[in-house]
Amino acid sequence: MDVDIKAYIRTIHDHPHPGIEFRDITTLLNDPVGFREAVDAMVKVHDADTIDHVAGIEARGFILGGAMAHQLFAGFVPIRKKGKLPGETIEEDYALEYGTDTVELHIDAVEPGDKVLLVDDLLATGGTAIAAIRLLERAGAEVVACSFVVDLPDLGGRAKLEALGKEVLTLCHFDGE
Amino acid sequence: MDVDIKAYIRTIHDHPHPGIEFRDITTLLNDPVGFREAVDAMVKVHDADTIDHVAGIEARGFILGGAMAHQLFAGFVPIRKKGKLPGETIEEDYALEYGTDTVELHIDAVEPGDKVLLVDDLLATGGTAIAAIRLLERAGAEVVACSFVVDLPDLGGRAKLEALGKEVLTLCHFDGE
Repeated sequence: MDVDIKAYIRTIHDHPHPGIEFRDITTLLNDPVGFREAVDAMVKVHDADTIDHVAGIEARGFILGGAMAHQLFAGFVPIRKKGKLPGETIEEDYALEYGTDTVELHIDAVEPGDKVLLVDDLLATGGTAIAAIRLLERAGAEVVACSFVVDLPDLGGRAKLEALGKEVLTLCHFDGE
Repeated sequence: MDVDIKAYIRTIHDHPHPGIEFRDITTLLNDPVGFREAVDAMVKVHDADTIDHVAGIEARGFILGGAMAHQLFAGFVPIRKKGKLPGETIEEDYALEYGTDTVELHIDAVEPGDKVLLVDDLLATGGTAIAAIRLLERAGAEVVACSFVVDLPDLGGRAKLEALGKEVLTLCHFDGE
């Protein structure tokens, strides 16, 4: 699934820390052709026509997920950092390199049996995505697939999501990190 | 321009502070029909077919703006809180009820002469939108219109944006706040 999406992605060296090669998708989003190709490719999961909701992870997953929900004629569900959603929420912690972070979902954002496509810009260790899946499943939804622009396969996220039985769709990958 | 968008918006009382009626658009985004109607209405500015970029204000403006950029076949430009964009940025401060906050734009996100549609979920005092317009204009772009789901006209944002010569499109309004 490598169209030329990778050519639109900018690498910023030593961001946010020395030694990190940051994969910046804003240059992809900025280009009308790149953005459209990315969105159109990311919705091509096996059961696209049965998706009820696209769930996007804050913040870059909102940009892609908004476009994908509109394209699929699905509703959009935000997965946000703690304290950002105004209604009643459930929460899940996930591990960072140092410490933990928390994501939240509105408890009434999905209904039991809803089919959900989960979206973010980048798949690394999969920690955030797995926390998001737990939230959606606790609320009764079925996460049928996960779409990302970039895969960092050496960090193992794809293997973890596939071990949970999820379809994983990525548009390009960067090795050696 | 009142389609029945307002019926999809949930009000959460006393959020985030006592006395505040919080207009929650997540219930609009969550509904496939509501979301599509909102996005399709928000792109109907006078010069829609000449828009080069849709600029969305973090974070709810990302969801709407991503869908609108995809719909218009335009590029998407994020306006983010300070410290979130990885490349070289310019910044603008704006006033809050107490203190100030800062938004940033990648300096290379737009080119001189680009026509931009600015997007956010809600227009209150207009402070964030005006800071975003300043950023885009400093980078050489022309902000031709601003789209919001909700207008709070008593807070005066629309009048300020119109005084700058901007077309302002809103889908519904709430009085008395």
